[in-house]
Amino acid sequence: MELAIDALISKIEELDNPTCVGLDTCIEYLPQKWQEKCGNFEDAGRYIRDFNLGIIDAVAGIVPCVKVQIACYEMYGAEGMRAFADTISYARQKGLIAIADAKRNDIGGTARCYSAAFLGRAKLYGKELPTFESDFLTVNAYLGSDGVKPFLEDVGRYNKGIFILVKTSNPASGELQDRKLEDGRTLFEAVGDYVMEWGKPFMGKYGYSSVGAVVGCTHREQAESLRKRLRGLFFLIPGYGAQGGKAEDIAVCFDELGRGGIVNSSRAILTAHKNRFAGMGFDEAAREAALLMKEDLTRAIRGKANG
Amino acid sequence: MELAIDALISKIEELDNPTCVGLDTCIEYLPQKWQEKCGNFEDAGRYIRDFNLGIIDAVAGIVPCVKVQIACYEMYGAEGMRAFADTISYARQKGLIAIADAKRNDIGGTARCYSAAFLGRAKLYGKELPTFESDFLTVNAYLGSDGVKPFLEDVGRYNKGIFILVKTSNPASGELQDRKLEDGRTLFEAVGDYVMEWGKPFMGKYGYSSVGAVVGCTHREQAESLRKRLRGLFFLIPGYGAQGGKAEDIAVCFDELGRGGIVNSSRAILTAHKNRFAGMGFDEAAREAALLMKEDLTRAIRGKANG
Repeated sequence: MELAIDALISKIEELDNPTCVGLDTCIEYLPQKWQEKCGNFEDAGRYIRDFNLGIIDAVAGIVPCVKVQIACYEMYGAEGMRAFADTISYARQKGLIAIADAKRNDIGGTARCYSAAFLGRAKLYGKELPTFESDFLTVNAYLGSDGVKPFLEDVGRYNKGIFILVKTSNPASGELQDRKLEDGRTLFEAVGDYVMEWGKPFMGKYGYSSVGAVVGCTHREQAESLRKRLRGLFFLIPGYGAQGGKAEDIAVCFDELGRGGIVNSSRAILTAHKNRFAGMGFDEAAREAALLMKEDLTRAIRGKANG
Repeated sequence: MELAIDALISKIEELDNPTCVGLDTCIEYLPQKWQEKCGNFEDAGRYIRDFNLGIIDAVAGIVPCVKVQIACYEMYGAEGMRAFADTISYARQKGLIAIADAKRNDIGGTARCYSAAFLGRAKLYGKELPTFESDFLTVNAYLGSDGVKPFLEDVGRYNKGIFILVKTSNPASGELQDRKLEDGRTLFEAVGDYVMEWGKPFMGKYGYSSVGAVVGCTHREQAESLRKRLRGLFFLIPGYGAQGGKAEDIAVCFDELGRGGIVNSSRAILTAHKNRFAGMGFDEAAREAALLMKEDLTRAIRGKANG
């Protein structure tokens, strides 16, 4: 069976597109007429779901992957979580790779429950069932390796992947992450070095591990140095577009073969029908925006690979 | 209106009990006959909910607070999340203070959604509604202050509280948290110092802030030094009982008036009907275990306050 990271990289190569559509679907992103129907959690869940399914249909065959930000769904309670589940499941059904962006973290026994929810199987009486089965999950490692281990076990057991927060894209990410340790490394480098260790048992045929790192592209020099330091770690790269990251910033996250990362864009794709491609349907507009993003990024990454 | 931290401390004083029952309800904790009925997510959600409601009824009037570990519910999907919502809401209805233990974290815009789910209000068309409305939420601050800010805003706006992970109770917590920084502080001290800053606008009448810290009692010396360092930060203290923390270890987390923290116990209370008080109903057993815990801890803390 193909490792999760190999499936992701193969899909990126097949579509020649290292990008990922972020389904951080807020009701403000929906067409006005749908928004107006979101008067309770059930309807919010339903219209968000329908919007996502439309986006997935529109970008399938163009982008290899979606990243679904669970916070946007959790906000609408059980009904929102149903929309989250349907979105993940529909994306996978359409051949897209699904990243659950949940940044989960806890002590070992509890992390096991989180891992069961997204990567493994939930325990019932005499049987086990998948819940929000995803291909990858984002994880926060502040608790240390015994909090990460349950996820690693499921990566092995169910052939899944995780992306661990190393250097995030937000403006204040440096407050803790950039702190210099006594040994001269920054905290984010120390976390990255742990992720390298954790990832070793899951190396795939392209030289990358199913255990990867979240590295924002909004802090270019740090991303560049991390690309050199963390050989074999695949990067999930937020920060492109609305957060200020540009294609040239992102190119530094890729290796000499133009591999090594996947770039997320949410707002520019989901709100294309309200901005750049106003007048088009939300799905058609998302498709156009996804094509533009592909072009923008592949040009920059190829430029670097050839340069 | 009373600050969240003042309500918590008042309730602790009223019941003379600085403990908290952790509703980390796994199906293995249920009475055997109930477990056998948990063959799908809907039934698992229902029996976990009923178990929790029984525990809440049994401990109301003895313990001031419950901490509900969301991972145990998320594992059962939308049905599990409904059980989580019902548990939080029933506990508050019974006059208990409810801590949602979710360790949420993300960049600002996304953290806003998490905060809306647990502390604030979810945005619908033309209105806002609470989702999993809790009194306190646990938060992971690895992303830095802009990721924490949305929670702080809701602490102010809706009179809620948060507990930020400073030093966790798990064995490997030191891998990152104990790292020495260039300036001589450990990482957990640096996080604690930030929490002090963030908490300043929310100081209550007992000299503690509605923005507190998670400090495990399994690393006694560190807990003791944090109690001295982080004056004004109320501690949520995991690690007692099954994780190895003893009453004497916990006493160091309290101030000279016997205030300053709340100690969580999950397994010993929830599984009392299978262990220490086998033969009793799960609720009656939980009540007995909660009384023992109260006695064990108040003796140790009072011993310290008087000593």
